[in-house]
Amino acid sequence: MKSHSKPLLRALSGQTCVPPPIWLMRQAGRYLPEYRETRARGRNFLDVCLTPELAVEITLQPIRRYALDGAIMFSDILIVPHALGQKVWFEDGVGPKLEPLRRAEDLEKLAPAAMAEALAPVYETLRCLRRDLPPEVTLIGFAGAPWTVASYMIEGGTSKDFARAKTWAYREPEVFARLIDLLSEVTADYLCAQVEAGAEALQIFDSWAGIWPEAALRRWCLEPVKAIVARVKSQHPEVPIIVFPRGVGVLYEAFAREVGADALSLDTTVPLDWARAHLQDKVAVQGNLDPLLLVAGGEAQRDAVKAILEALGAGPFVFNLGHGITPQASTDHVADLVAQVRAWRPET
Amino acid sequence: MKSHSKPLLRALSGQTCVPPPIWLMRQAGRYLPEYRETRARGRNFLDVCLTPELAVEITLQPIRRYALDGAIMFSDILIVPHALGQKVWFEDGVGPKLEPLRRAEDLEKLAPAAMAEALAPVYETLRCLRRDLPPEVTLIGFAGAPWTVASYMIEGGTSKDFARAKTWAYREPEVFARLIDLLSEVTADYLCAQVEAGAEALQIFDSWAGIWPEAALRRWCLEPVKAIVARVKSQHPEVPIIVFPRGVGVLYEAFAREVGADALSLDTTVPLDWARAHLQDKVAVQGNLDPLLLVAGGEAQRDAVKAILEALGAGPFVFNLGHGITPQASTDHVADLVAQVRAWRPET
Repeated sequence: MKSHSKPLLRALSGQTCVPPPIWLMRQAGRYLPEYRETRARGRNFLDVCLTPELAVEITLQPIRRYALDGAIMFSDILIVPHALGQKVWFEDGVGPKLEPLRRAEDLEKLAPAAMAEALAPVYETLRCLRRDLPPEVTLIGFAGAPWTVASYMIEGGTSKDFARAKTWAYREPEVFARLIDLLSEVTADYLCAQVEAGAEALQIFDSWAGIWPEAALRRWCLEPVKAIVARVKSQHPEVPIIVFPRGVGVLYEAFAREVGADALSLDTTVPLDWARAHLQDKVAVQGNLDPLLLVAGGEAQRDAVKAILEALGAGPFVFNLGHGITPQASTDHVADLVAQVRAWRPET
Repeated sequence: MKSHSKPLLRALSGQTCVPPPIWLMRQAGRYLPEYRETRARGRNFLDVCLTPELAVEITLQPIRRYALDGAIMFSDILIVPHALGQKVWFEDGVGPKLEPLRRAEDLEKLAPAAMAEALAPVYETLRCLRRDLPPEVTLIGFAGAPWTVASYMIEGGTSKDFARAKTWAYREPEVFARLIDLLSEVTADYLCAQVEAGAEALQIFDSWAGIWPEAALRRWCLEPVKAIVARVKSQHPEVPIIVFPRGVGVLYEAFAREVGADALSLDTTVPLDWARAHLQDKVAVQGNLDPLLLVAGGEAQRDAVKAILEALGAGPFVFNLGHGITPQASTDHVADLVAQVRAWRPET
């Protein structure tokens, strides 16, 4: 099957598909009983990500269950700091933990030269997936954006206000820029290598972009992501790139205009009519159902899905969530969602 | 001194003041050594809020130190659930805790009739402050918006994703609406009573507005706040109302257009040029320095302050932060900020 007959690739190339393709952020996750079972076979979360047999199986689970249009490789954005030699681990119920970077000297310990070997299992996972996926399903690779990854590397985990990372950026912008530049380079290389291993589309997650004033957002988020997009496009111009600058509000328009991505993933708060008028005229858009509607289900879910389809379905569009699916989501509600999207046709 | 000779009231009435007035959200707080000392004299945080002698002293501390233009009464938005009879307490280093509402029947336990008595100390605090404040300083009262207060009442404290509160709203909108309506009514009464006790301006904090899709945001945030503004204005048309719908991005414009407030408080992420073009033509604006710049200080702080003044200083504007000041802020950096704002004149 030729690439562009895949619905997700068609939509990302700017075509309007009726019905639109659909995949869900964190679609392989704890809400699936089969995930929880497979997950229990790995020693820890990173171990699962870096064991191709397990990562492939987990990636395929939501495709088998729901016949989604995109399969995003099972991995984590913190694979990159791990591959750079930073200590990363996941505590159940707490989330990721890292031995945090605290001063300029700590940056010297990061070892980009070791990355390719550390990431070899990810590429193996992609090669297997490309072989095993149904022909109409698009294989999606991904990475975290430099700021989002840097925030974990400095805070040592998730953070309420990013006080350490932001204060560092404000106080020592040259040192902070070295970290961001390093991450931009290795992330671009990592994404290129994912394509070479079989990824057909890429998503860059800037999950914590929405905490900066504009000037800093441009310097630490928009410009580095733009640089990554340019570097990947110079090697692989045919591979569409989706950027998810979560929470940037009004500045989604700057991302649409300036960053060179094929599509923007919209968080839940982006108003639909505004997105149609100000973003979808420039790029394909993806989103943006509130993941908690897949917990609630019923009429609230149906109405919200319909509103999204009606607002964005007439242009280049990929149905997705506004953020990752939660462990409390109901598998039945996900089935309802997929059925509703598949059945949708514009009213004429 | 007549009200409108007070700089803050002039700016909130739509006049351009050069330099603009300044106050800081959470200006009476842990970054001040004198606050920490007074705070230690109360048994617990709520006790301090409800002891007029302590609340007055704490409110005055930042005014003495920095001669700010606004004095916001020392209190907390969770005074309202406390006054409604819900169990509320503050754990050091953890934040607020509440015995959460879990089902429709729990709403029956809330007792609006008991509020006036429970809130009497707040009104006493305001009467004392009105007597003790320097004549050029505006006394600011405040309350949380219904959604933000409801989120604490349902989650039992701060929350990462508001899963319980949002799921409740999605599943049982009629029940959830009863809670929001109740909070709208008692909050409007509370704000009116604050005015009657001496408050000269009011701020409504919708700190967690920025997590909803547009339709839900309108129903649970914009409309209830609009109803409160209308009710307070019907009693006290002369008292300016500032609304802070933190994180609503593009929909700040809907708040400017529809809610009937005199001013909007802008969070840190609102782009300055956009705010000037889309908000300041409709209402006065207030904001939006990143509070972490008062930790970092130096050039980053100076440049950001200058950018804000230059973008917004030519219209009705109140200098403030984009969120509450943090305990790690430096008192010297706050002094630098105030001096820079006081010295500012537009370039001609």
